[in-house]
Amino acid sequence: MSIRVGIVGISGFGGGEAMRLIAGHPSFELVYAAGEGSAGSRLADRFPGVPAKLAGLVIERWNPASLPKLDVLFASLPTGTSAEALARVPKDVKIVDIGGDHRYAEGWAYGLADVWPDHIAGRSRVANPGCFPAATLTALAPLLAGKLIEPGGIVIDAKTGISGAGRGGGGGFGYAESNENLVPYGLLKHVHMPEIATTIERLSDGSAAGLVFTPHLVPMTRGVLVTIYGRGRTTTGECLDAARRFYAGRPFVRVTDTPPQTKWATGSNLAFVSYAADLERNLVIAMGVVDNLGKGAAGQAVQNANLICDLPEAAGLDGVPVWP
Amino acid sequence: MSIRVGIVGISGFGGGEAMRLIAGHPSFELVYAAGEGSAGSRLADRFPGVPAKLAGLVIERWNPASLPKLDVLFASLPTGTSAEALARVPKDVKIVDIGGDHRYAEGWAYGLADVWPDHIAGRSRVANPGCFPAATLTALAPLLAGKLIEPGGIVIDAKTGISGAGRGGGGGFGYAESNENLVPYGLLKHVHMPEIATTIERLSDGSAAGLVFTPHLVPMTRGVLVTIYGRGRTTTGECLDAARRFYAGRPFVRVTDTPPQTKWATGSNLAFVSYAADLERNLVIAMGVVDNLGKGAAGQAVQNANLICDLPEAAGLDGVPVWP
Amino acid sequence: MSIRVGIVGISGFGGGEAMRLIAGHPSFELVYAAGEGSAGSRLADRFPGVPAKLAGLVIERWNPASLPKLDVLFASLPTGTSAEALARVPKDVKIVDIGGDHRYAEGWAYGLADVWPDHIAGRSRVANPGCFPAATLTALAPLLAGKLIEPGGIVIDAKTGISGAGRGGGGGFGYAESNENLVPYGLLKHVHMPEIATTIERLSDGSAAGLVFTPHLVPMTRGVLVTIYGRGRTTTGECLDAARRFYAGRPFVRVTDTPPQTKWATGSNLAFVSYAADLERNLVIAMGVVDNLGKGAAGQAVQNANLICDLPEAAGLDGVPVWP
Amino acid sequence: MSIRVGIVGISGFGGGEAMRLIAGHPSFELVYAAGEGSAGSRLADRFPGVPAKLAGLVIERWNPASLPKLDVLFASLPTGTSAEALARVPKDVKIVDIGGDHRYAEGWAYGLADVWPDHIAGRSRVANPGCFPAATLTALAPLLAGKLIEPGGIVIDAKTGISGAGRGGGGGFGYAESNENLVPYGLLKHVHMPEIATTIERLSDGSAAGLVFTPHLVPMTRGVLVTIYGRGRTTTGECLDAARRFYAGRPFVRVTDTPPQTKWATGSNLAFVSYAADLERNLVIAMGVVDNLGKGAAGQAVQNANLICDLPEAAGLDGVPVWP
Repeated sequence: MSIRVGIVGISGFGGGEAMRLIAGHPSFELVYAAGEGSAGSRLADRFPGVPAKLAGLVIERWNPASLPKLDVLFASLPTGTSAEALARVPKDVKIVDIGGDHRYAEGWAYGLADVWPDHIAGRSRVANPGCFPAATLTALAPLLAGKLIEPGGIVIDAKTGISGAGRGGGGGFGYAESNENLVPYGLLKHVHMPEIATTIERLSDGSAAGLVFTPHLVPMTRGVLVTIYGRGRTTTGECLDAARRFYAGRPFVRVTDTPPQTKWATGSNLAFVSYAADLERNLVIAMGVVDNLGKGAAGQAVQNANLICDLPEAAGLDGVPVWP
Repeated sequence: MSIRVGIVGISGFGGGEAMRLIAGHPSFELVYAAGEGSAGSRLADRFPGVPAKLAGLVIERWNPASLPKLDVLFASLPTGTSAEALARVPKDVKIVDIGGDHRYAEGWAYGLADVWPDHIAGRSRVANPGCFPAATLTALAPLLAGKLIEPGGIVIDAKTGISGAGRGGGGGFGYAESNENLVPYGLLKHVHMPEIATTIERLSDGSAAGLVFTPHLVPMTRGVLVTIYGRGRTTTGECLDAARRFYAGRPFVRVTDTPPQTKWATGSNLAFVSYAADLERNLVIAMGVVDNLGKGAAGQAVQNANLICDLPEAAGLDGVPVWP
Repeated sequence: MSIRVGIVGISGFGGGEAMRLIAGHPSFELVYAAGEGSAGSRLADRFPGVPAKLAGLVIERWNPASLPKLDVLFASLPTGTSAEALARVPKDVKIVDIGGDHRYAEGWAYGLADVWPDHIAGRSRVANPGCFPAATLTALAPLLAGKLIEPGGIVIDAKTGISGAGRGGGGGFGYAESNENLVPYGLLKHVHMPEIATTIERLSDGSAAGLVFTPHLVPMTRGVLVTIYGRGRTTTGECLDAARRFYAGRPFVRVTDTPPQTKWATGSNLAFVSYAADLERNLVIAMGVVDNLGKGAAGQAVQNANLICDLPEAAGLDGVPVWP
Repeated sequence: MSIRVGIVGISGFGGGEAMRLIAGHPSFELVYAAGEGSAGSRLADRFPGVPAKLAGLVIERWNPASLPKLDVLFASLPTGTSAEALARVPKDVKIVDIGGDHRYAEGWAYGLADVWPDHIAGRSRVANPGCFPAATLTALAPLLAGKLIEPGGIVIDAKTGISGAGRGGGGGFGYAESNENLVPYGLLKHVHMPEIATTIERLSDGSAAGLVFTPHLVPMTRGVLVTIYGRGRTTTGECLDAARRFYAGRPFVRVTDTPPQTKWATGSNLAFVSYAADLERNLVIAMGVVDNLGKGAAGQAVQNANLICDLPEAAGLDGVPVWP
C-alpha cells in the first residue's frame, strides 16, 4: 500500500529534488505539492522531465487548513518561515522539515540519519540537518565518538555549490557574477554553527568551544566539501579504521583512503569521508563530501521519512551518482 | 531470473553511464566489465559511488575468448575499434554497440529505439545511434514521416557538451582550455553525417542531398541540442501536432511548446523535441535535446537491450532528470 | 589634452566594461559615472579592482540636466530606455549609445566600425551594433561586398554567453539554472533581426528576405559565436581571400583558416571570422566570434568614440585577449 | 630604448600570460620565445589574438647556447626542470624564474614583490613565489610584521582554479572530470609548504612549526583564494589597519573590509586581502586573493622584472581586472 506524501516548497531546489526522489520511490506516492512561485502550474510545466504519472499534478498555494489526506509532508521552505508555516499541520501528518527552523527545536528529532537512525525511527517530526552540518557531522562523528579528536577548537572550512544558496537567492547568484568566482561569506557568524556545535557536544560529551566555521561559494551547481582541522593525537589509519567501524553496515557513508571529491556524490544520497592525521603535530584533518541537495537536503529527508515510516532505510535512494 | 550482462569500455564515459543504469535495472545483473585504462581495478576504485553489490567486481582486460556466460554485452569503444573487438564475441551473446562501427552495418539493426522499436525487437545485434543523430532524428522523424519537411537541404547546427568528445580526448579538452569557450569543429565532414543522411532517406523515401551538419563543443559536461533548419510549408502547430501523434504512448519523447533546454534531460533517457515554422517563408525549425550519455549513448543502449531481451521498454530507465 | 568622458549605465556589464577600457585609454579621462543600481557608491565599492585614480569617483543618479562638462558620453542602458534618457543630453556632448534604441535611428550613425569607419568619423551620435549583429555582419560583410553569398535566405545560428543577457536579467539567469544548460530562445522574433537585415541590404544592394536568426544562451560568461548558412557558388579559399582583402590593414578583424573559438576574443576588441564553402552544394558557411562585452559592446563603443574624436582607431584597445 | 626580453615555456599557461603582459608593456620588446610543445609555430598560430607586431615571431626549441641578445628572460618551466634548463644562460641576461626550482636557492632573490621590493631591486636572478605562497604571504605579511598573529600553528586552506595545475596536467584535468567538481589534494605534503614556512619565519623572526597547508582544485579557470586560520589576540579592525599601513603606497595590494572574491583579480596583477579576528577566541582569519596567472605567476614576474630593470614598478601592469 502506498504512502501518501506531499511537498511544500516545490519551487525551490530542495523541494524539486524531493519530487525527483519521491517519483522513483517504491512506497511513496506524491499526491500534493505546494509552492509560492509556481502555484497554479502543473508539475510538468515546472519540471519538463517529470514522469507521466505526475505530469498533471497541479501545484497549489500552501494552506495547511485544506490539505488532502497525507501520511508524510516534506517541507522545504526558507529558514525563518517554516516554523509558522508548519504550525497548523495536523498532528497525524508526519513532517520532515528540510528547512532550518526546527533543528534542535522541542518535539523535533534532529535527523542525522547515518549517525543516529534509532533516534529518528518512531518520531513524527524530524528536522533535517543543513547541508554543511550533514557533511561536517558525518565526517566528525566517528572521531568524536572514538575520542580521536578534541571537541574544542575545531576549524571548519566549508565549500558549497551555488544551489546551496537557494533559488530565492536573487541577484547575488547570477551566472555571470558567480561563474569563475570563489566567494567566502558569513565569516564568524554562519547560521549553521549552532547545530554543528550542539551535535559535536552530543557526540563527544565535551565542549565545542572555539568552533570556527567559514563557508565559501564555489562556482558549481551542486556539492559540499568540508575540510575540518582539529587537535588529536592519532594517525590517518586509526581515523579511517574508526570511521569504517562506525559506519559498518550503514548504507550511505563511504570511507575512502583518498580525499573525497564533490562529484563522487552528485545526484545521490551518499556521503564520503576521509582523514589525514599527524601524530607529532597533534593534528587531525577530516573531510566530508555530500550533494547539498541529496544528503544535504532531499536525500536525507527521504531517508528520514523511510525511518519514521518504518520502511527500509534505503528505499528509493539507491540511485548511483551521476558521473561525469 | 536475472539477465547476465557485461560492459566492454567501462573506462569511458559511455561505459560508465551504462554501469550506472545497469546497477539500477530490475532485470540486468552486471557480471563482467572490461576496460583498457582500468583493468585490474575494482569497480569501486573507478566509481567510488558504485553500489555495494558491484563494488568488488574486478575490471578485466578485454578478451572475447575468455568471456563468462553472458546474455547481453554493451560495447562502448572508440569508433574504429569496435568492429574488430566484437567480431569474435559468441553468437549467442546479444550485443548493443554504443560505438560507431556497426551503424547500418550488415546484420546490425540501427537502434533508433523511440522511432522504430519493432525493427529492433527480436534482433541480437544492435548499433546504437550517435548522440547527434539521436537528437536530430528524434526531432525530424515526425516531420519526415508526415511530409512536413523536405528531406533535402536540411541544415543541422549541433551543439554538444564536452563529454561527447570522449574520455580519450586528450589535451584538446582540458578544463582551462575548454571552459568559457565555444568551439565549432569538423565543418562539412563530421563522422555522424552518413547515418543521419541514411535515416532521413529511410524515414522520407526521399533524398537527403545537401545535408549540412556543423557540430560545436559547448562548455558543459553533458547535453546535446540540435537546431535544425529545413524547408516546408507548414505551421508550428502542425509540426507539434504531428510530433505528439507520432510519439503518442512512447515513453521517452516529450514534445514541448517552448524550445527545449539541455538541462531538462540530464541524467535521463528522455528526448525533448519542439518546432517553429513559418508558412510564408517555407521554413521549418526543429529542435532536439538529449543527454549525450543518456539517450545519446547508454540510456538508448539499455532501451535497445530491453527491446531485444523482450523486457518492458522502460525497465531501469525511469530516473527523473537531475535538476538543477 | 585629455578628453572628458562619462558613462551612464555603469551598473550593467556593458557600462562596467566601458569603465575598464576607459581606465586604460591614453586620451580619455572618466569624470562622470551614473547608474541606477549603484548610485551613491564610489567606483571602488562597485569595482574593487578599479585603479586608484578612479576609486573615489562617486556614481550618480542619471540626470541629463546636471551633467558636468563632457566631451563624450557612453550610454549602456536597457533597450527601450535610452531614447528617452538621452534626448536631453546637450548637443555638444558626443554620444555613443551601446544600447539598442538608436540603431538606424535618424541622426545616428550605425557604428559598425570595422566595416565602415569613414561613415562614423565626424559624427556626434553613434549607435553601437548589438553583439549578435557585430559578429554576424563582420563575418558577412566581405562576402556580401564580394557577391560571394546571396543576401536572401541567410540562416544565422547565434550563441552567446550569459552576460549577453544583461545584468538586469533577473531570476532567469541564476547560476544553478544556467550552468550546464544550453537554451534556445526568441525563435523567429529576436530583437536583433532588423539591424542585421538592414545592414545586409546596405552591404549587398539586395534583399535580405527570408532571414532566419536563432539565438542560444551558452553556459559561459562572455563570448558570441555566430554560425551562418547561406547560398553562394564559391569556395572556402575564395571566401578567406575576400575577407583578408576586405580587412587588410584594419586593426581588429582576424581572418583564420580554422573555425574561430569564443575564448580567442575574451577581454579584447577583436573579431575573428572564418569560412567554409562547398561549390557543388551552393553552400557558404561563415563564422564570426566576438567578446559580447568587447567588440559586441564596450570595445566597439570605444572604437567608435576614437573615430568620432579623431583619435587613432585602436587607442586604448590594444589589450591582448585573456587566455585561458 | 626598449628592453629585449625572451620567454622560455611559452606553451604553458604562465608563459602565455607573460607574453600577454609583455605585449602591452611600454618598455619590453619580446624578441624570443621558446616552448617544447609549440616549437616551429608562429606566435599567431598559438595565440590567435596576439598583436600584429608579434604575430610572426617563430617559437623555438629551447637552447641556451643560441640565444639572441637578451636583457631579461622569463622562464616558466615545470618545477624540477628549470634549474638545469637555466644553468647555462649567460650571466648578463637577467632571469625571472616563474617556476619552482630557484625559490630560496643561493644567488636568487625570492620575488615577493609587494612585500620586499627593495630586496629585489638590483638583483639579476629572481625566483617568483608560487601562486599559493603569493596569496598567502601577501595576506600574512602585515600580521606577522605587526605581531598580530603567531607564526606557529597556522592553517592554510587554499583553493585554486584549474589553470594552476598547469597545462601539462594531462588526463587528470579534463573538462568533464573537473567541471562541477571540487577536489582536495596533496594533504600534509604540498610542494609550496617550504617557501611559505621559510617566508613566515623571515617575516616574524619566529618559528612556523605546525604549519598546515591543504590545497583544493576549484572548477574555474583562474583564481586563488587562501583562507588562513591562526592564533592572535587582536581584532578585525586592528588587522585591517595594520594591512593598510603596511601596503600604503604600494600599487597592487588592496585591503578590503569584506571577504575578497577571486573574480576581483582576474587578468590583473592585483592582490586582495581581508581579515576577521575574534579577540576572545584568540583567533585570526586572513584571506588573500590573486589571479594565479597574474600575481601568482606572470604578473608578479613582470613586476619583478620592472624592479630589476629599474623601471616603474607598475609598468605594463595597469590592466583593470576583467569582470564579469
